[in-house]
Amino acid sequence: MDIDRTPLLTDLYQLNMLAAYLDHGLTDVAVFELFVRKLPERRGFLMAAGLEQALSYLETCAFSEADVAALRRLGSFPDRLLDYLLGLRFTGDVDALPEGTVFFPDEPILRVIAPLPQAQLVETRLINLVHFETVIASKAARQVLAANGKPLIDFGLRRAHGAEAGILAARASYIAGFAGTATLAAGIEFGIPVKGTMAHSFIQVHDDEAAAFENFARSRPRDLVLLIDTYDTERAARRVAELAHRLAGEGIAVSGVRIDSGDLAETALTVRRIFDDAGLPKIAIVASGGLAEDQLLALRDAPIDSFGVGTSLTTSSDAPALDCAYKLQEYAGIARRKRSQGKATWPGRKQVWRTHHRDGEFAGDAVTLEDERHEGEALLRPAMRAGCRVGRPASLEAIRLHAHDQLVRLPASLRRLEPFVYPVEISEGLRNLAAELDRKERASAVPRP
Amino acid sequence: MDIDRTPLLTDLYQLNMLAAYLDHGLTDVAVFELFVRKLPERRGFLMAAGLEQALSYLETCAFSEADVAALRRLGSFPDRLLDYLLGLRFTGDVDALPEGTVFFPDEPILRVIAPLPQAQLVETRLINLVHFETVIASKAARQVLAANGKPLIDFGLRRAHGAEAGILAARASYIAGFAGTATLAAGIEFGIPVKGTMAHSFIQVHDDEAAAFENFARSRPRDLVLLIDTYDTERAARRVAELAHRLAGEGIAVSGVRIDSGDLAETALTVRRIFDDAGLPKIAIVASGGLAEDQLLALRDAPIDSFGVGTSLTTSSDAPALDCAYKLQEYAGIARRKRSQGKATWPGRKQVWRTHHRDGEFAGDAVTLEDERHEGEALLRPAMRAGCRVGRPASLEAIRLHAHDQLVRLPASLRRLEPFVYPVEISEGLRNLAAELDRKERASAVPRP
Repeated sequence: MDIDRTPLLTDLYQLNMLAAYLDHGLTDVAVFELFVRKLPERRGFLMAAGLEQALSYLETCAFSEADVAALRRLGSFPDRLLDYLLGLRFTGDVDALPEGTVFFPDEPILRVIAPLPQAQLVETRLINLVHFETVIASKAARQVLAANGKPLIDFGLRRAHGAEAGILAARASYIAGFAGTATLAAGIEFGIPVKGTMAHSFIQVHDDEAAAFENFARSRPRDLVLLIDTYDTERAARRVAELAHRLAGEGIAVSGVRIDSGDLAETALTVRRIFDDAGLPKIAIVASGGLAEDQLLALRDAPIDSFGVGTSLTTSSDAPALDCAYKLQEYAGIARRKRSQGKATWPGRKQVWRTHHRDGEFAGDAVTLEDERHEGEALLRPAMRAGCRVGRPASLEAIRLHAHDQLVRLPASLRRLEPFVYPVEISEGLRNLAAELDRKERASAVPRP
Repeated sequence: MDIDRTPLLTDLYQLNMLAAYLDHGLTDVAVFELFVRKLPERRGFLMAAGLEQALSYLETCAFSEADVAALRRLGSFPDRLLDYLLGLRFTGDVDALPEGTVFFPDEPILRVIAPLPQAQLVETRLINLVHFETVIASKAARQVLAANGKPLIDFGLRRAHGAEAGILAARASYIAGFAGTATLAAGIEFGIPVKGTMAHSFIQVHDDEAAAFENFARSRPRDLVLLIDTYDTERAARRVAELAHRLAGEGIAVSGVRIDSGDLAETALTVRRIFDDAGLPKIAIVASGGLAEDQLLALRDAPIDSFGVGTSLTTSSDAPALDCAYKLQEYAGIARRKRSQGKATWPGRKQVWRTHHRDGEFAGDAVTLEDERHEGEALLRPAMRAGCRVGRPASLEAIRLHAHDQLVRLPASLRRLEPFVYPVEISEGLRNLAAELDRKERASAVPRP
């Protein structure tokens, strides 16, 4: 099974519902919207990502004979459903926030308009892709802001949740402004700059740390970064200084050293002084080891030139999931509303509008019905029509520029990662529609038990 | 790119180190061990999982011509390395805790003994697989204990971190005692029981909730579970009761209802009363919606028969990562030790011993050098020799039984998820070896700057 491409990557209940939809002729056009209900603690904004993977999934979603045979072996699906699945292609429309766009709760980030069985079936994998990359881009954007211009590298494949998570975390963090990734497969797949240093094991297999440095330098002289905290960091820094002078004569430059443990600020100061005293001001200091936003903020004044960020990024460790949902907003031309306690939705097809201050900073958003007029910029854009993409996929570099532009325009408190509630207005048209649907639903309680 | 199988799913630095190892003849036998440094907050134990995927990776790890061509295009790798990669197969030994085994910090859960370049290269993906499944099995085990015998179903694919995370989370949670998963692909791939109910959208596309229930019941009468919280839960329960009586005459049984919002305990009581009063004591109540251990413990006395658990399980939301490491413990027959501040390792090849009380409960563990004698059961077992598996893969059902047996033998405080520090002794042999290496390392500081 090609795990990232199989249409079987869905919940059983989707197929159960499809079977019932087909039985009862419920194949009219449905409108679903994907949105986040509320922000995780300590978060002030989110950044949309994953649209490219979502569209690619919709373009290629198809059940093979082998997939259908596997379903048949499970024993419970009617032939009508299995035949339908064999011929299924996604023929619907998608509107979405461009990747890299900052957004807030209650704002749809993706809308699917398609015959009900199609729109229903794709729910699980669409959420799976868009949720994850959005989680990571949102986390990475915070780290980029915290690092205040210093480059960040994704070191987090090993503790990412599986293969796809590792690769897509590299992509999402690059969108949000990371400078590169250590993950080779992501570099090759997406053209992201690949960076790397060395591991402690390299030092340890040598009986002598200085010999380890020299061996590595001679074999991998380009972008040479030596890891200096395996035993005694100060002593290792002095060894690097000695080696740097010796190799300079041969045209090999030590680009930097990496520190991965201890008090990073204090160690960086000491190491910086050792290199400066040795006349080696160009040797950069890379720090890694358990870094997240708080540590990056605390290290702002330390003489550290760049950071490797691992687990906190690729698992979004303080908020590994968002309270998001993909909910039916309209079926057969009629707006729909779920009223479950604490989980009620705004009905109908919507648009998100953003107004700006004169200096370009975001002033506030409004969520309206799609056909309501509102000032500002309409954020949801056509991404797919009748199963075909609208326009060419944006390049990763273009998406990254857009994300950068979004972060620049954030209100200053959000840029500083300080608590700030960004204003999102729910339009009168939307409130009226919701109230009207509630009245109808309550009325329907009368005739039946 | 087959993302879950490509050998490119590794960190750039592994290849940089490999190039240097080959240049300097560092191809002797290396011993790496994978272990967890410390427990996440509020956790008292961990459960090993992911060995099957790790062994499968090692068995099949190979660079194709296309992989090597992709590396060549990156431009920085010497031919010597690329030729080596083309011929590379894993020929080493692996010892590991059987999947489903409970373990504690400092205890190796997997050991690789192989020529250094092989043992180094596989680091990233080995951690990526074993870490993730261990994270999920450990989280799932807590939820199984909290649910106190009531069945749990994995509903978490949509918010799992990508495709592989969703599928492997289903596997790891099934190992730890979950009763099944909603993820079709996991059911088909691993033979895990697949369960599912219906979504709110199914109700919403009908103009009438009662009609929605009846349509679903007629199409999917087997294991019929109806979702009753879309609008007004009590009213929906009464509608289900009416329908259940009507359908009983046709041989269709309503197996259960699902509640996904509101105060689950209170709602379950009300709904239970409605069904009992209607003479329908067999209709079960399934609860879902933001459940984790604390909620499961709080719902112990509620009339809920089973639970759907999503995000908290598949992202291990309170602890999405473990502080684990894959560290060099020996090279060319000599024990090695990293001394980085706060990250020092115990050197050498180790074994983990577990002693039991007379009633079978775990009494305590000891970590020793492999050749030290100790009472109790040796937990690390041969899993691979010279690149070939030892014995047949254990069946998922056998692994699940082993995991169950482990949970039964946990000290009572751990079973109750209460704070408890399980005793893990570090042997004298291990302490002596570490002290000896430290002395040698300090001595080596003298001759060189």
